[in-house]
Amino acid sequence: MTVYYEDLKVGQIIEYGQHTTDKDEMVAFARQWDPRPFHIDEEFAKSTFYGSLTASGIHTLAMFTRVCNQGTADMAARGAFGYEKVRFLAPVKPGDTLDGRSEITQMRLSKSRPGLGIVTSYESLTNQRGELVLDFTVSYLIEVRPG
Amino acid sequence: MTVYYEDLKVGQIIEYGQHTTDKDEMVAFARQWDPRPFHIDEEFAKSTFYGSLTASGIHTLAMFTRVCNQGTADMAARGAFGYEKVRFLAPVKPGDTLDGRSEITQMRLSKSRPGLGIVTSYESLTNQRGELVLDFTVSYLIEVRPG
Repeated sequence: MTVYYEDLKVGQIIEYGQHTTDKDEMVAFARQWDPRPFHIDEEFAKSTFYGSLTASGIHTLAMFTRVCNQGTADMAARGAFGYEKVRFLAPVKPGDTLDGRSEITQMRLSKSRPGLGIVTSYESLTNQRGELVLDFTVSYLIEVRPG
Repeated sequence: MTVYYEDLKVGQIIEYGQHTTDKDEMVAFARQWDPRPFHIDEEFAKSTFYGSLTASGIHTLAMFTRVCNQGTADMAARGAFGYEKVRFLAPVKPGDTLDGRSEITQMRLSKSRPGLGIVTSYESLTNQRGELVLDFTVSYLIEVRPG
């Protein structure tokens, strides 16, 4: 059943689901998009403060987006305008399982685009140790229920 | 020659270089991380407002990161704390060439981490038609010149 603007409310929490990353995924992503030695060179990474490979911040955002897609497949959401206050709060390491969730903080109908609402939410990824690794705020468009 | 904190100044512009994307790259990225029909289904995308496939916002950020790496290979930069006000301002379509640049807006020495400076900059990607497609603000650590 499709989820429309009217089906959401301020304070609502949406659990997106989880994604587990591993060394191969982390290195493949970083080689293509963010080839810093601490993301792609396991030996080098052992000598750093974190003592192991860490995921690129962009890879962490990509993992968030993947679980967000899983968790909102039934929402009549349109695109996002952008992100506010993106924070990388803890390293993501091989084998980490990241849990995505969203809490709706504001809602209003669009004045310029009839038939659409604007939802603002606080988004986060937490690892298997309960540590917050990523958070940010997003505003996105969602369709109002037809008719 | 390594670029340290002392080699930078407020107002300085760093040209990162360019990245050209194509349909295969856009679809491959989106299939893995953001499989929305307007990013992966060319026929569906023709029926949308933009009339063609558009890149995932996360893919656009990844393209930014790639050119940023190219343009800062000689900088003694450390990690970023996060991003402020990430805006997706225009669609990125197959064949687009994106040009990355940075303008330093603030600099200060870190109080808590001797030997490091904190640089804040305005980052952007512009396409081959001169349209701004992405911008945001970032703060990152950079080493001060040794000795």
